[in-house]
Amino acid sequence: MILVLNGPNLNLLGRREPEVYGRATLADLERACHDAGRELGVEVVCRQSNHEGQLIDWLHGAAAEGATGVVLNPGGYTHTSVALRDAIAGIAVPVIEVHLSNVHARERFRHRSLVAGVCLGSVLGLGVDGYRLAVRHLATASG
Amino acid sequence: MILVLNGPNLNLLGRREPEVYGRATLADLERACHDAGRELGVEVVCRQSNHEGQLIDWLHGAAAEGATGVVLNPGGYTHTSVALRDAIAGIAVPVIEVHLSNVHARERFRHRSLVAGVCLGSVLGLGVDGYRLAVRHLATASG
Amino acid sequence: MILVLNGPNLNLLGRREPEVYGRATLADLERACHDAGRELGVEVVCRQSNHEGQLIDWLHGAAAEGATGVVLNPGGYTHTSVALRDAIAGIAVPVIEVHLSNVHARERFRHRSLVAGVCLGSVLGLGVDGYRLAVRHLATASG
Amino acid sequence: MILVLNGPNLNLLGRREPEVYGRATLADLERACHDAGRELGVEVVCRQSNHEGQLIDWLHGAAAEGATGVVLNPGGYTHTSVALRDAIAGIAVPVIEVHLSNVHARERFRHRSLVAGVCLGSVLGLGVDGYRLAVRHLATASG
Amino acid sequence: MILVLNGPNLNLLGRREPEVYGRATLADLERACHDAGRELGVEVVCRQSNHEGQLIDWLHGAAAEGATGVVLNPGGYTHTSVALRDAIAGIAVPVIEVHLSNVHARERFRHRSLVAGVCLGSVLGLGVDGYRLAVRHLATASG
Amino acid sequence: MILVLNGPNLNLLGRREPEVYGRATLADLERACHDAGRELGVEVVCRQSNHEGQLIDWLHGAAAEGATGVVLNPGGYTHTSVALRDAIAGIAVPVIEVHLSNVHARERFRHRSLVAGVCLGSVLGLGVDGYRLAVRHLATASG
Amino acid sequence: MILVLNGPNLNLLGRREPEVYGRATLADLERACHDAGRELGVEVVCRQSNHEGQLIDWLHGAAAEGATGVVLNPGGYTHTSVALRDAIAGIAVPVIEVHLSNVHARERFRHRSLVAGVCLGSVLGLGVDGYRLAVRHLATASG
Amino acid sequence: MILVLNGPNLNLLGRREPEVYGRATLADLERACHDAGRELGVEVVCRQSNHEGQLIDWLHGAAAEGATGVVLNPGGYTHTSVALRDAIAGIAVPVIEVHLSNVHARERFRHRSLVAGVCLGSVLGLGVDGYRLAVRHLATASG
Amino acid sequence: MILVLNGPNLNLLGRREPEVYGRATLADLERACHDAGRELGVEVVCRQSNHEGQLIDWLHGAAAEGATGVVLNPGGYTHTSVALRDAIAGIAVPVIEVHLSNVHARERFRHRSLVAGVCLGSVLGLGVDGYRLAVRHLATASG
Amino acid sequence: MILVLNGPNLNLLGRREPEVYGRATLADLERACHDAGRELGVEVVCRQSNHEGQLIDWLHGAAAEGATGVVLNPGGYTHTSVALRDAIAGIAVPVIEVHLSNVHARERFRHRSLVAGVCLGSVLGLGVDGYRLAVRHLATASG
Amino acid sequence: MILVLNGPNLNLLGRREPEVYGRATLADLERACHDAGRELGVEVVCRQSNHEGQLIDWLHGAAAEGATGVVLNPGGYTHTSVALRDAIAGIAVPVIEVHLSNVHARERFRHRSLVAGVCLGSVLGLGVDGYRLAVRHLATASG
Amino acid sequence: MILVLNGPNLNLLGRREPEVYGRATLADLERACHDAGRELGVEVVCRQSNHEGQLIDWLHGAAAEGATGVVLNPGGYTHTSVALRDAIAGIAVPVIEVHLSNVHARERFRHRSLVAGVCLGSVLGLGVDGYRLAVRHLATASG
Repeated sequence: MILVLNGPNLNLLGRREPEVYGRATLADLERACHDAGRELGVEVVCRQSNHEGQLIDWLHGAAAEGATGVVLNPGGYTHTSVALRDAIAGIAVPVIEVHLSNVHARERFRHRSLVAGVCLGSVLGLGVDGYRLAVRHLATASG
Repeated sequence: MILVLNGPNLNLLGRREPEVYGRATLADLERACHDAGRELGVEVVCRQSNHEGQLIDWLHGAAAEGATGVVLNPGGYTHTSVALRDAIAGIAVPVIEVHLSNVHARERFRHRSLVAGVCLGSVLGLGVDGYRLAVRHLATASG
Repeated sequence: MILVLNGPNLNLLGRREPEVYGRATLADLERACHDAGRELGVEVVCRQSNHEGQLIDWLHGAAAEGATGVVLNPGGYTHTSVALRDAIAGIAVPVIEVHLSNVHARERFRHRSLVAGVCLGSVLGLGVDGYRLAVRHLATASG
Repeated sequence: MILVLNGPNLNLLGRREPEVYGRATLADLERACHDAGRELGVEVVCRQSNHEGQLIDWLHGAAAEGATGVVLNPGGYTHTSVALRDAIAGIAVPVIEVHLSNVHARERFRHRSLVAGVCLGSVLGLGVDGYRLAVRHLATASG
Repeated sequence: MILVLNGPNLNLLGRREPEVYGRATLADLERACHDAGRELGVEVVCRQSNHEGQLIDWLHGAAAEGATGVVLNPGGYTHTSVALRDAIAGIAVPVIEVHLSNVHARERFRHRSLVAGVCLGSVLGLGVDGYRLAVRHLATASG
Repeated sequence: MILVLNGPNLNLLGRREPEVYGRATLADLERACHDAGRELGVEVVCRQSNHEGQLIDWLHGAAAEGATGVVLNPGGYTHTSVALRDAIAGIAVPVIEVHLSNVHARERFRHRSLVAGVCLGSVLGLGVDGYRLAVRHLATASG
Repeated sequence: MILVLNGPNLNLLGRREPEVYGRATLADLERACHDAGRELGVEVVCRQSNHEGQLIDWLHGAAAEGATGVVLNPGGYTHTSVALRDAIAGIAVPVIEVHLSNVHARERFRHRSLVAGVCLGSVLGLGVDGYRLAVRHLATASG
Repeated sequence: MILVLNGPNLNLLGRREPEVYGRATLADLERACHDAGRELGVEVVCRQSNHEGQLIDWLHGAAAEGATGVVLNPGGYTHTSVALRDAIAGIAVPVIEVHLSNVHARERFRHRSLVAGVCLGSVLGLGVDGYRLAVRHLATASG
Repeated sequence: MILVLNGPNLNLLGRREPEVYGRATLADLERACHDAGRELGVEVVCRQSNHEGQLIDWLHGAAAEGATGVVLNPGGYTHTSVALRDAIAGIAVPVIEVHLSNVHARERFRHRSLVAGVCLGSVLGLGVDGYRLAVRHLATASG
Repeated sequence: MILVLNGPNLNLLGRREPEVYGRATLADLERACHDAGRELGVEVVCRQSNHEGQLIDWLHGAAAEGATGVVLNPGGYTHTSVALRDAIAGIAVPVIEVHLSNVHARERFRHRSLVAGVCLGSVLGLGVDGYRLAVRHLATASG
Repeated sequence: MILVLNGPNLNLLGRREPEVYGRATLADLERACHDAGRELGVEVVCRQSNHEGQLIDWLHGAAAEGATGVVLNPGGYTHTSVALRDAIAGIAVPVIEVHLSNVHARERFRHRSLVAGVCLGSVLGLGVDGYRLAVRHLATASG
Repeated sequence: MILVLNGPNLNLLGRREPEVYGRATLADLERACHDAGRELGVEVVCRQSNHEGQLIDWLHGAAAEGATGVVLNPGGYTHTSVALRDAIAGIAVPVIEVHLSNVHARERFRHRSLVAGVCLGSVLGLGVDGYRLAVRHLATASG
């Protein structure tokens, strides 16, 4: 199973600054992840929370839930959360960081990711397709 | 309706470092906001939380609750929360940042506000009256 | 009496970058301050200068003129003038810093205020209404 | 009573990067604290949460619960949380910061503690024994 | 057609620090790109150079050669080349930046990418599969 | 008409550090500007002041005086004056920044120009001829 | 003879970000330089390369080719090339740095020029006319 | 003759933050300078201004007035004025910088003096006696 | 045996800034260390020096003297001495860094410890009890 | 009695970089101090050492020796020694920092003084006369 | 065989800033290397290029050419080239960095070497003899 | 005579972190220096101290002892001692800085050398052979 975790404000997708984040809603995004999983015969579970602690709890529980990989868009916590970084480093399941927009084309404080260094890798700026590619990578590697 | 959101540690008001924050309690502060609203014929709803995610959830729900403006004192999250910034930028309701104390007369890490740039404006250092002035500005502008 | 001091380039109001500073002229702004004072039974005196030294001279003379509070928009000197800071710190009359635009939504060098730390407080980004609110705060506190 | 609060990811102890954090589990650690308390005739209460807001709530309630001291390992929030700092500064109960590992022998962003300046003191790098020593200090001082 | 450009030192692949870059050679990597293109019915052309100016020349010529997208691994020029950035910004063909290793888990000077801000997006740390995913994204979008 | 404004210490020209600024006096420099204007049939008006506020006043009045362009050497205010920057940004007349010496071959604090970003352009290090070239550019563009 | 050297991406002129660089092509620009030279009876030779090493080679050969001055637009190498700086410092022919756009009104990393300190001077933001003025300055000084 | 120039806010002496600046007034301070001069048979002329431009004008005129040395307390301009620095560097008369308080025991932005590097020397923190010592040094050297 | 080394200015204890360091003298502090050792059956040897080189010499000789652990308060050398750091890293005996006061509640330059990264751990801000706890930790571990 | 302490390399005076430090030897300098003391009826004791620890020892012993003031030139330790700073802060005798040369006209690392903030004041750049003035200030104040 | 690679501008040796680089030409320098090799019975091959990519190509080919060591003076690329650093790290042949002048006695941007960390070692400021010593070290170790 | 001075912790050689510093002892290192001197007919005198002041005293006495050159490994003082820098600058004998390990491949604070800028040159990372090469350079130059 592959766990797709969306962090703060991603529940606003489609309504929030559509010129930056596009018009797809969170439901559209999650549907794309499920489709990508189905295509490869891998279950995909999607969750969203605005609470840093909740995201950490889900990461801690990922292995016990049977996840073989996590796709994580940490939203604004990307740039500020050492706790999230420690959670990723502390679990055995590989995590891929995904961002819908190209964070490097935006404000300077978005250029630094505190979590990138402990993830397997990152996919930035490719919109909903970035999630699909990350699911595909984890599914292929994890079977 | 105008939503007044107080962030972490503002529930300690009156007890916490009174030489910095004054002797008014959170109840006093909220009463002042209600009074200011009543004077202008605008409903005022007050809430407080120490949880970053809770503050984000309330901001997301503001428009649906009928809020035409938000007065926000993000407490310590002012200086560290990109997630809160994104929540403010992601909603259509105007937000005014308020601080009881003059943050610029305090530690250097309090001089930077991550949220100020996406708020309508800020009122700093005017104590409880700062909330009143912010309510008045939003009430007058939003009717 | 409340003294309203406008610093460099505020004489251009209405003509200068109206998308940033709005369409109100300096005369409009000063009229709003006089109105706010009249409403509260407090005299308001307004002055503008592009000269740093002139602003300092006026601050020094404020108490002798009978001012019980000063509303100060230091314009570009906000970010560069230690001399202005020292003048505010050196007088007994309380000073509120006001900016028409939200300086935190603009260039990085506008985010730092050298004077904020010695003012009573600051009102940012609320346009002409910011002056009104500052006058009201001083008038209420000083009577 | 002495309150021992463990922050984010400390529930992973024993499983998480054992070369950094050792093989003792959170249960082992809490048992050591209880033992240290019992030896000195002081009750010890232990709690853990991954939620910043929960830690703040517990700190606020410490005095009302009868705590005469708090041993706090803020985990990743150490380096990023002004809200936690304000909570510690806002309560009357003394707090000692504890870290299992020597944070100064690790990544640069772990060298700065936002909470250290408002704690009574800090114990770093002495593993589970660091908690014992902190309990002992508080118990002896608060008895 | 999709152009795959590899920058300095990628000709050493398989021999150079295999614990960082893996054991696949440049030929293996280019074969994977060709395969990915063939699967989607899109021609893929691969080139490698250690010369910054050569990479710029190829980017300038991409549209004229019929490229509808470029996959670019700028190697060490990622962190130092404004000229490469300008070349990407100056052409109409979309570019995706790819890195084999997770640059954020390495030296600090590798954390900054001068080119990321003008690319469509970036894929980091997913090894040879990162190239495949980038080709797929461009092929699907441009196909 | 083209206005040539010289800022602080340029009245010392010829006497002040001639190995840096050359032996031409301010009168020589102004004569060169008048000559350049006469050659192109454009009136040139020259002024100098050591007062930041005076320079701002002249910039504000430029359009009303009939100036179609301003050549400005802000001297030491180049590196420190946000107020001057705002004055340039606030007027409709194009301004060219000129420096006699090559500021980049001097102390580090001279490398940053606060005004350059709001000028049309800059001419540095070409001595008196820099003024001539700037007058010529403005005269040709403005007729 | 005066040598006009254009660095990386200037071959894209007219096509590349015309809102920044204007609509003139490199051919137009070089024609303007030739015209300026002809007017003053000085031969002008123009070259362009995207290769840092090629630009260095041309600078080294300038004196032997009979150049009495060099007009150099180093493009993106302006901000990153110590090697180019050393080449300019190492030859006897005076060099003027020219930029079409006002680099100070753009990204922060464009504000620093590594070559400016060893050039005779700089002309920024005056478009094609900047080249003309630089040629004129060198031609007048060098005859 | 020795010129003693006091900058912004020194007219407030005795009234302004007496715990920092002492209880002596500007008149007391100037009397001490005159006394020190009389003792050594050297005329002393004292002036004060809050205007940066005025201080520059006085420095420019010092030699013509017959001054053989200048004692300068630039107040807040110390930390911000390149123009004042250039004025000191541009005149032949030696200048000694004096501060009443120990600027290094105060805010960080007061630790840097832009003028110190071009003065003969500095006397800090010795109160009114610092002026006396500076007059004495200049009088003895210039006699 | 456990070696307790006190660095510069700790001989002033009791007299020096008692509001920061407390009223206990160095003799009191050393007595507390001896008592703590006696209680655990471990010999404790105490020394103090203001000389960086002397502290390094003692660290080098620790093993030969039979020390199984060192408690080190490096005083002001904490923040500046790479040589002391190298001495600690170069010996086989474990070292615990102790500070009487909470260095993080003081000047910024005291927040960085150059030695912490090569010590076993640190105890800060717990006064004389910090030494006791460090002796206890070493005695228990080494006993 | 007034103690004059010279730090590292001041024994080289007269021989060491005479264009920076002048031709007077340490003996000359000490003679000038003795003369200044004799003139005011105050004993002066002079010492020099290249050892940081020795300077600290002398500062600690100053009061016991009967010193009512210390003139200290800490040489290179000025910029690097927290230990020396702590020694000055830890004793009751007032200390004046003196430097022969104008450190602000030299390398950047000489601009910061770690000791200045805890001294009574500083005299910089006035050569041997700086010592005389410092002795005079202390003698007059301490008599 | 030992490969001696000289980077940009070293072909100017003898002509370029001789007060910095000395009067020996590149031919002299290469002759000294050949002589040093001959003395130790090791072949020495010398090359120079101003092209970063060319230097990388040569480093890549070093082992295949039979080189057992490389002496590299990267000229201006020393301070800016991550690509060159990666090339050195990516080959098995040991590299010694050599600079003719003492880079630490020059501009600040020359103090940082991007390549030093992956070289065997560095020899700086010893002129042509530095090359000889480097050849000798490699020859002795590899010979 | 050539003086070889080893600074703090070099007496630990062979025992201290042998993976960094190698297995040769200080005696081995000094023997290698003596051998190198003997080979060239130059006397070599070796000393080691952990005391900064002692190293300064030896540098001051070098010329009087007949030294024509100094080989100096300042150990940890390299990165922190302005006093040592001043001692080197203050004597007439040339000094070469030597480090056994490649400091640029280690912690960031080891990358900066405060003494390098006033030495003749530096040899880094070549182990004991670095001393030999430095002796040889000085012996040949000083003969």
